[in-house]
Amino acid sequence: MFLTLDLESEDPIYTQLKQQIIAGIAKKELTPGEALPSVRALASDLGINLHTVNKAYQQLKQEGFILIHRQKGVVVHPEGVAKADEAYFQLLEKTLHPIIAESICRDVSEETFIKLCKDIYQTYKSEA
Amino acid sequence: MFLTLDLESEDPIYTQLKQQIIAGIAKKELTPGEALPSVRALASDLGINLHTVNKAYQQLKQEGFILIHRQKGVVVHPEGVAKADEAYFQLLEKTLHPIIAESICRDVSEETFIKLCKDIYQTYKSEA
Repeated sequence: MFLTLDLESEDPIYTQLKQQIIAGIAKKELTPGEALPSVRALASDLGINLHTVNKAYQQLKQEGFILIHRQKGVVVHPEGVAKADEAYFQLLEKTLHPIIAESICRDVSEETFIKLCKDIYQTYKSEA
Repeated sequence: MFLTLDLESEDPIYTQLKQQIIAGIAKKELTPGEALPSVRALASDLGINLHTVNKAYQQLKQEGFILIHRQKGVVVHPEGVAKADEAYFQLLEKTLHPIIAESICRDVSEETFIKLCKDIYQTYKSEA
């Protein structure tokens, strides 16, 4: 998979890295057990700071997307990402609430919002 | 409308304030032109710093939810919040993409995700 960074974006680089790796797993471009570049290699390839890559990797590890082995290096979690549990659904709802509140203020209908979500789901399917 | 703060939340206080005012507008508990407490009054009522309230109000102003008059004070935008435009839809899509990617990794089906969004839309309708 290719990682592309937008250096002019307001999103921090580590967030962009994280989101692209998660997107890669969602699209099944990255499969369970697959090796990811080492912190050093990725930082060098992308011309960014070691700490930036490390921050992204540490968060991905904490959230269960990857494992960091002393010997095997960094791999996509071999058992797959943990399935959504009650805590995840609570977090998801808490995340979506203000987004939907703002959309309602801006006159985005439920149908339009749902259509957008479906279209986004589709992008992960069609590229799988 | 009542504002309630969760001081143990990871979300900053100004974000909580902002989100609750936006939710109030979405639920039509706050209507166009309605007066909001002054920065000083709200900070005093909630027992929080003036700067925290000011930060929330300034962002709400920038995003078009409220107006801050020198004389009339703080009011919900009298002409209503600006409707979603192309830029807003782009931002919304950009916001939803990583959320949906993570949900897919965690095996949340499109149907389940859509159901959650519809349920959230419903909470804003039923309380209107």
